[in-house]
Amino acid sequence: MSWTLHPQLERDTLTLGDLPLGRVLLMNDANYPWLILVPRREGIVEIIDLEEADRTALMMEITQISRALRDGTRCDKLNVAALGNAVPQLHVHVIARFRGDAAGPNAVWGRAPAKPYAAGAQEALAAALRARLFLAERGA
Amino acid sequence: MSWTLHPQLERDTLTLGDLPLGRVLLMNDANYPWLILVPRREGIVEIIDLEEADRTALMMEITQISRALRDGTRCDKLNVAALGNAVPQLHVHVIARFRGDAAGPNAVWGRAPAKPYAAGAQEALAAALRARLFLAERGA
Repeated sequence: MSWTLHPQLERDTLTLGDLPLGRVLLMNDANYPWLILVPRREGIVEIIDLEEADRTALMMEITQISRALRDGTRCDKLNVAALGNAVPQLHVHVIARFRGDAAGPNAVWGRAPAKPYAAGAQEALAAALRARLFLAERGA
Repeated sequence: MSWTLHPQLERDTLTLGDLPLGRVLLMNDANYPWLILVPRREGIVEIIDLEEADRTALMMEITQISRALRDGTRCDKLNVAALGNAVPQLHVHVIARFRGDAAGPNAVWGRAPAKPYAAGAQEALAAALRARLFLAERGA
């Protein structure tokens, strides 16, 4: 059975591209630079449901996108989380946090509603992050 | 410089014991069976600040405690997260979630206030989880 991205993740994000294990997405929310890593493995809900080699790759890719995000945004803190309360398909949030951002000292979920990016701003951030991750835009 | 557990984590948890990298803690919150894994490495805030071997060990220990928690509680879902918005010392939450629990379909942070365990219940859960993780109580 072939893997397809969950429609809610498709709807809520812009695709940066594919690392060896995971697809990298940028959330449609200007409140925080917010990446999501989705292992392209059909039917996986939990990290512990992945094969051991895939868990190793997952940690490597979390590391890669965390560094790209921190270096690219100069954020104060990273939040890394696999929750899956709303969308069951395994996905890992990697969020750049800044002091005084829309969630303040709290976790981001259930706080500020998603804020649209200004025209071109999401694409510009996506391009900068793709360059750091050596990802090519699909179809480019 | 030697590692010490952050005082807020000390205050909010019961200690299960030490895996090779991390100390395993059980939150003082009966709303959810909630483990916290704290790598015993001084001054580390982010997962990407760990050495590569420690990141590998972290993924192995997240896997171990996730399995112990899922098998020991028969929960519906796991939440795994390294946030650090309140306590900067790197720590990973591994939370057993149930349909209809105190946070419902949401993330647990900033939802229900911590609920005390009934007398003996936290110690009983701790003992069951220690057995699954082959951990000895400190001083025992």
